Amino acid sequence: MGDLVRVAVLGASGFVGGELVRLLQAHPEITVSVLAGKDSAGSTLASVHPNLSSTPLGGAVIEPVDPDEAARRADAVFLCLPHGASSLVVPPLLDSGMRVVDLSGDFRLEAEDYPPWYGFTHPAPDRLPEAVYGLPELFAERLAGASLIANPGCFPTPAILGLAPLLRAGLLETDVIHVDGKTGISGAGRASGDAAAFANIHESVRPYRAPRHQHTPEMERGLRLATGFEPTVTFVPHLVPAVRGVVTTCYARLALTATTDVLTGALDAAYRGRPFVRVCRPGDMVDSQRTRGTNVVELQAVADERSGTAIVVGAIDNLVKGAAGQALQNLNLALGLDETEGLPTVAVAP
Amino acid sequence: MGDLVRVAVLGASGFVGGELVRLLQAHPEITVSVLAGKDSAGSTLASVHPNLSSTPLGGAVIEPVDPDEAARRADAVFLCLPHGASSLVVPPLLDSGMRVVDLSGDFRLEAEDYPPWYGFTHPAPDRLPEAVYGLPELFAERLAGASLIANPGCFPTPAILGLAPLLRAGLLETDVIHVDGKTGISGAGRASGDAAAFANIHESVRPYRAPRHQHTPEMERGLRLATGFEPTVTFVPHLVPAVRGVVTTCYARLALTATTDVLTGALDAAYRGRPFVRVCRPGDMVDSQRTRGTNVVELQAVADERSGTAIVVGAIDNLVKGAAGQALQNLNLALGLDETEGLPTVAVAP
Amino acid sequence: MGDLVRVAVLGASGFVGGELVRLLQAHPEITVSVLAGKDSAGSTLASVHPNLSSTPLGGAVIEPVDPDEAARRADAVFLCLPHGASSLVVPPLLDSGMRVVDLSGDFRLEAEDYPPWYGFTHPAPDRLPEAVYGLPELFAERLAGASLIANPGCFPTPAILGLAPLLRAGLLETDVIHVDGKTGISGAGRASGDAAAFANIHESVRPYRAPRHQHTPEMERGLRLATGFEPTVTFVPHLVPAVRGVVTTCYARLALTATTDVLTGALDAAYRGRPFVRVCRPGDMVDSQRTRGTNVVELQAVADERSGTAIVVGAIDNLVKGAAGQALQNLNLALGLDETEGLPTVAVAP
Amino acid sequence: MGDLVRVAVLGASGFVGGELVRLLQAHPEITVSVLAGKDSAGSTLASVHPNLSSTPLGGAVIEPVDPDEAARRADAVFLCLPHGASSLVVPPLLDSGMRVVDLSGDFRLEAEDYPPWYGFTHPAPDRLPEAVYGLPELFAERLAGASLIANPGCFPTPAILGLAPLLRAGLLETDVIHVDGKTGISGAGRASGDAAAFANIHESVRPYRAPRHQHTPEMERGLRLATGFEPTVTFVPHLVPAVRGVVTTCYARLALTATTDVLTGALDAAYRGRPFVRVCRPGDMVDSQRTRGTNVVELQAVADERSGTAIVVGAIDNLVKGAAGQALQNLNLALGLDETEGLPTVAVAP
Repeated sequence: MGDLVRVAVLGASGFVGGELVRLLQAHPEITVSVLAGKDSAGSTLASVHPNLSSTPLGGAVIEPVDPDEAARRADAVFLCLPHGASSLVVPPLLDSGMRVVDLSGDFRLEAEDYPPWYGFTHPAPDRLPEAVYGLPELFAERLAGASLIANPGCFPTPAILGLAPLLRAGLLETDVIHVDGKTGISGAGRASGDAAAFANIHESVRPYRAPRHQHTPEMERGLRLATGFEPTVTFVPHLVPAVRGVVTTCYARLALTATTDVLTGALDAAYRGRPFVRVCRPGDMVDSQRTRGTNVVELQAVADERSGTAIVVGAIDNLVKGAAGQALQNLNLALGLDETEGLPTVAVAP
Repeated sequence: MGDLVRVAVLGASGFVGGELVRLLQAHPEITVSVLAGKDSAGSTLASVHPNLSSTPLGGAVIEPVDPDEAARRADAVFLCLPHGASSLVVPPLLDSGMRVVDLSGDFRLEAEDYPPWYGFTHPAPDRLPEAVYGLPELFAERLAGASLIANPGCFPTPAILGLAPLLRAGLLETDVIHVDGKTGISGAGRASGDAAAFANIHESVRPYRAPRHQHTPEMERGLRLATGFEPTVTFVPHLVPAVRGVVTTCYARLALTATTDVLTGALDAAYRGRPFVRVCRPGDMVDSQRTRGTNVVELQAVADERSGTAIVVGAIDNLVKGAAGQALQNLNLALGLDETEGLPTVAVAP
Repeated sequence: MGDLVRVAVLGASGFVGGELVRLLQAHPEITVSVLAGKDSAGSTLASVHPNLSSTPLGGAVIEPVDPDEAARRADAVFLCLPHGASSLVVPPLLDSGMRVVDLSGDFRLEAEDYPPWYGFTHPAPDRLPEAVYGLPELFAERLAGASLIANPGCFPTPAILGLAPLLRAGLLETDVIHVDGKTGISGAGRASGDAAAFANIHESVRPYRAPRHQHTPEMERGLRLATGFEPTVTFVPHLVPAVRGVVTTCYARLALTATTDVLTGALDAAYRGRPFVRVCRPGDMVDSQRTRGTNVVELQAVADERSGTAIVVGAIDNLVKGAAGQALQNLNLALGLDETEGLPTVAVAP
Repeated sequence: MGDLVRVAVLGASGFVGGELVRLLQAHPEITVSVLAGKDSAGSTLASVHPNLSSTPLGGAVIEPVDPDEAARRADAVFLCLPHGASSLVVPPLLDSGMRVVDLSGDFRLEAEDYPPWYGFTHPAPDRLPEAVYGLPELFAERLAGASLIANPGCFPTPAILGLAPLLRAGLLETDVIHVDGKTGISGAGRASGDAAAFANIHESVRPYRAPRHQHTPEMERGLRLATGFEPTVTFVPHLVPAVRGVVTTCYARLALTATTDVLTGALDAAYRGRPFVRVCRPGDMVDSQRTRGTNVVELQAVADERSGTAIVVGAIDNLVKGAAGQALQNLNLALGLDETEGLPTVAVAP
């Protein structure tokens, strides 16, 4: 066995950072050499993430976020920083020769998308072309050796993975696609205050931020990159009483009289042999519970021939395939490792 | 005060039957004279619905379902029987001069819809024209004095209430409307077995029965009755980890460049003064939690001008406005009583 | 009908304050004349408690807390203020001739108990003897006409109600009683931060603050006031994944070889005719779900003759019988009204 | 690497059987050679446990339970059969030279305990002395090479592990110990019907089967085996709204004026170096959430000197340390493997 790859996790105290360390501590070829955070600097990892207290890293003290220090002591870096903060540290990290997986939204779009959708002017627009959009099932070849990876958002992941093969196969019209999302509260991050209180989540289903959620242009761009077509997306996310899990239900116009079998076959063909994709057959609808704690995405397509609509659903664990797991899958690919290293596919159930 | 109206509840042992008795026991002008059930016959009401044990009805013994007996001892009857069972007992009840509110799907559609959507041939197609579709906010005038009321399904209620005023105002195109539904498990009824187990619902979001759910033609017909237009509906219901609550998110094509304000204004105008409708403003999205235990429906419409889509959302408690509460509202109207009698609008929260 | 009694709610923005207004708005002989809060002053009631938006009070603007103003515009006042704050405003309110129901812990104990259990020196120890401990099922006669009522804590309510009749009947030894409590998160109040986040409550059972919870001396004192005996209490509260509900399980030494029937009979005899007490029989264990939203307490006693232990369990809704509901029951009694006015006994279930 | 140990899982379709396969499929030195079940015979493993569909075993067809067949094709067997069924198949399995880990209660007690606590006469009382009670942290030396292991119940595991070191150290009196248990619904098994429905578990806390739960004599016997003392136990289990997690809170009389530090020190000393035991310090109470999916037990002891009571709490995942995980730990020890093989200590959180 060769030397272990040393990675830094900047932003280790949030839900995504904790999930990343949970995965990395069991990775056979990677070692965590830097753990850094903002508010948690000075605390031990175990005090911030008690579930990690039995790992050798549990006693490690979280450092302040310092890109130079990370560049000195690591070969690659995961950025779990807020939107707007990542784009400030990415240029110096790249200039130091680091491989960077950015889990924020800062490198997922075109420069002109940032003011309307994220509310800020991108500080490093010249670096945007270097970023590879990290959906491994669609862009694996570009990820090999990539130095800057824009890790996708939780909602775009199942939506794009479900729609792209059908668009490419000409089975969907490219006019408006309606994407209805459902998510558990962990997608809002740790510091989400009153809105995340048990008393407010319990027995509550509610839409939010429609139609201005920043995952809208990400879906459009991801579909364009993957297919060349340019469908417009309307996206409405909803919060449901769960901790983890994202389900996207996409409604698109059938380009011709396709059947459920044809749609299912196109998904099968696109993802044959891909270790994290499970295509569901009629009679067995996708279920976010089965993806909990794993890097699996469940996909399903149903033709409603009566109305000429394709219904394309996907389910993931938002903290794994929708964030930390996919980030690790991306780094595996960038490093030339087996993409499945360190990534669970078996859920703890019930 | 005049005499109390005597009502029979046939099918008192399910969730909807129990909810109906919860509401009726506090109604100032109605008395429950017959409580009947199938599997629970011979048990006390309190043993089947322990939450009702403090009411005078708690000790009442549930009788077998017997329409003749109900006709002898009641002035009106609520049918909380399974689909296919109601249509067998409605004709004799009507012939006895009873006022009937049917909570099954047996009188909500046209005769030809039953084989494809419900899997049976309607046994009394000649009685279908007598049935008034019981959405009081849209059909109040037809409900006054009605002798047979088809109480709407849980998903059609918020979907039709949200869409109809916008369709009527010409703000939506009448081509395909996509309806994405989310529901708590109580919508599946009491005897729903393994699928309703806590271990299977918890942390699970999953679509079901798409695109063949029987509420699809009900939405189409309800919209047609209310507006004269004939949009096609694609409907995908999803189960989320809650007991109560239905949220429908409808995606329709904007007929012209309407704004959110115009859509909101159309809802306001349609429901001004209606005691159970709450139209939500931008910044305050609908939330099923706020309707829990009440007969309130929360509605909201948002224009996504970018994609030319109207997003129309609605939230209800599926057991109240989506079943028992609306049934009682319908009977109130049929009897000429104040439609709010016995119907809560204040949720127990948190 | 005579004039309505005008009441002020000081501390209207918390869970307990909101619950109190939910009950008061349906009370036939009381009107809410003052709504005051600290952080919420200037907001409408509906913005703080959206479940109250359909009530006439929904649009009322919450005022700053001002005891003088309350004394001017109300006949009675409910204090839903933090521990330590109530005892500062009670003396002037009493001096103004107001009737006061205090929902904090400030008047539940003896002066010497405050430093060790609450961490402050009582500012008005001379007013403590005026306070009547408001457990209506045990102290109804002292509540009639009372001007200062110390509303009991959530855990002491079911524990004392279950134990007192058995102690009085000589069925329990008066040595150490172990009280194990379980509570939903609403007991921690609205502003309970990270610990109350859905992600931290879900799938979590954990004890807290043992053995130093301030309800320990309250149980001891309540039992002493009710029985004359002086048992020592050890109390361990636990947080469970629910919003509402308190269950106390008490373990005491059987004074003689009593049976479950004898214990049950003693509870029956003590509470015969009391409208909010439900004594459970063997085979039907208490269940907090059945008390949700109501002022009911479920009690049960079981003799474990094998070990000489009496097991005495009680279940309530902590926000109703454990706080706002019992406060209203106390005011009803103090005013000479029927104690059941405005207090539900039928839970919304499931 | 030597040959893999072949194991049979009899009773693979329940929650515990599924959890065992989840752990075994990742075990580096064990292979599952027989999967057998009763009602599920003929189905694939993945259809019964969808979370296992990504494993090589997912497509395996579950066989009928046949001890002879298991003996032919396996070296060791896990029995996940109902109480009363295990004791019928253990004798032939032992006679075939199989190593048996029995997860039922059939070999945990003395013969005379079965009629009063389990309701049947033990069919193989002569084999009871062969059974080693499988609490590895207390009986590791007897487990090495054991051929019949009685895997402990979920409640006895944390209760005995917490109490035994304190009893042995003379820190507790040996009179009555009160054990208050809280459990998620998965402890009731998969086929638990209406009582396990989401609608009935949600917002419900309730005791059950007190004081006659069969884990009572198991706690007494386990404590006797571990310490030589014979305390009497009163045990009241409670169901709380969670899927997984058991917390036991034990109340015992302090034998002398011990402090929390002394008690904590005794737990530390007893379990130093044990890989699955986490002793919690004051200020950090045990939390079942942190054990989810892992074989960890969290223990804590607090002295209430005021009442002379020791409070001893423990938390586990009932399906892992309380069942399948401990069973695998036991087999590891019996086979001379590292006891941690295949057993997670890092929870998926939040």
